[in-house]
Amino acid sequence: MTEPTWHYENFDTTGSAIGYRVTRKLDEVQSDFQKIEIFETTDWGNLMLIDGAVMLTTRDNFLYHEMMSHPALFTHAAPKHVVIIGGGDCGTLREVLKHPGVERAVQCDIDEQVTRMAEKWFPELCDSNDDARAQLLFDDGIAYMKNCEAGSVDVVIVDSTDPVGPAEGLFNKAFYESCHRALKDDGILVQQSESPLALLDLIRAMRTEMGKAGFDAFQTLPFPQPCYPTGWWSCTLARKGGRGFEFRESDARGKAFETKYYSADTHRGAQALPPFVAQALGG
Amino acid sequence: MTEPTWHYENFDTTGSAIGYRVTRKLDEVQSDFQKIEIFETTDWGNLMLIDGAVMLTTRDNFLYHEMMSHPALFTHAAPKHVVIIGGGDCGTLREVLKHPGVERAVQCDIDEQVTRMAEKWFPELCDSNDDARAQLLFDDGIAYMKNCEAGSVDVVIVDSTDPVGPAEGLFNKAFYESCHRALKDDGILVQQSESPLALLDLIRAMRTEMGKAGFDAFQTLPFPQPCYPTGWWSCTLARKGGRGFEFRESDARGKAFETKYYSADTHRGAQALPPFVAQALGG
Repeated sequence: MTEPTWHYENFDTTGSAIGYRVTRKLDEVQSDFQKIEIFETTDWGNLMLIDGAVMLTTRDNFLYHEMMSHPALFTHAAPKHVVIIGGGDCGTLREVLKHPGVERAVQCDIDEQVTRMAEKWFPELCDSNDDARAQLLFDDGIAYMKNCEAGSVDVVIVDSTDPVGPAEGLFNKAFYESCHRALKDDGILVQQSESPLALLDLIRAMRTEMGKAGFDAFQTLPFPQPCYPTGWWSCTLARKGGRGFEFRESDARGKAFETKYYSADTHRGAQALPPFVAQALGG
Repeated sequence: MTEPTWHYENFDTTGSAIGYRVTRKLDEVQSDFQKIEIFETTDWGNLMLIDGAVMLTTRDNFLYHEMMSHPALFTHAAPKHVVIIGGGDCGTLREVLKHPGVERAVQCDIDEQVTRMAEKWFPELCDSNDDARAQLLFDDGIAYMKNCEAGSVDVVIVDSTDPVGPAEGLFNKAFYESCHRALKDDGILVQQSESPLALLDLIRAMRTEMGKAGFDAFQTLPFPQPCYPTGWWSCTLARKGGRGFEFRESDARGKAFETKYYSADTHRGAQALPPFVAQALGG
């Protein structure tokens, strides 16, 4: 047994860092796209890094995965066909498939190795990979959305890494146009949108690009996420067709599955943007 | 100009760390109680450390100070006399004095050097130190509450460091009994209560001790706070006399002063405890 050491990730854009006390490296693979490492921590379960950036820990990933899926799925009137771009750890897929009305959930991550590592080190997140409604693709998400049948998808979830490297193309007008085209008229796009404290400019830029692509209503929902810069994160929902963001509150309240962070009340609570965020995002 | 370096704080109890990119040390003093250091950061303004622990940064302290004051003050029907135990940086005092109904606000921090350093390096937090309603004491907060006239205080705010070292005595039944005695029948005690993700046991223990001291209703409100462990923090309110936590929502909505994080909506939102927190705290 070696002495635990501290692993830090320095975030150049925010000027802050987050670290974990790790006991040993469990695994490492260099895929065609990126380097994936798994560490064992003293308090957070297993930790996945991609190119040195913390992706998730066993202990706190439920915050992100629940908030990337349930608010959008309970805002849509009856989501049947969901596409997840990225999301290779399968945690978002698992949450999506908790909704009994979902008939088909496609997960398209460019890097199969992320899923293989998740199966090995985060098996609980892969619980639903064998669900008959699930389809796991390992392909380019940008191309997948571009070639998607028009008006065929209810919800697109963009569960990607930061807008650098492989994920850069998931944050611009061209990609959002593909999503807009693939979505039905009452469709919803939801994307992880970084820290509402430190990266408001990025959220603003995303919303602008989404607007150029034809989306006409936006909602940013903050939530805690200790493993990402500042520990405070967000997802941003975009709608087409002039629809708002009232959600199926009674369905959320009466859902037959368990969640740890998400509830009708925390969903409603997340809609209360702090004044400084609301002001920066223009109301 | 020296190269920026990274300053990390390792949290042994949570097994996680938070860091800042710092450009230089601006000041340092060894007081009778602790070592206070001020660093300049690249992105977070000035940073205060006490015995190596991050206390606040210029950029994100508004989250904590607003949430330590406004929820309690808008929950009380008409707070006139407020006591702040700790709070030497004066940020909570400033928020308290934004309430025009407050007639007297006593801040009792054991360490005058914290306030001197705040005046020098966080002058904006000390804006209200000369307010005629403010009284700054540098004394033992435990003794102050013990000797406080019974039934004289509307709100006690315990704005302290972690329950180790000088602040240890602010987290037990004896101290809470003093607070209970000093408060009027409709009084409110509010205390910073650490991370709702990593330190739920501590919040539970606090509520138990508060209960033993006679408080009969509790409310824990989570909020983001990037500079503290996990980036997710909380305050816990305790009431006497069987009163609940409905707040003066229309007053909060119509308040004549500005806040960046607090609003009637974020107050309401914070009341929606995530299921795993509600469950751990027993409802």
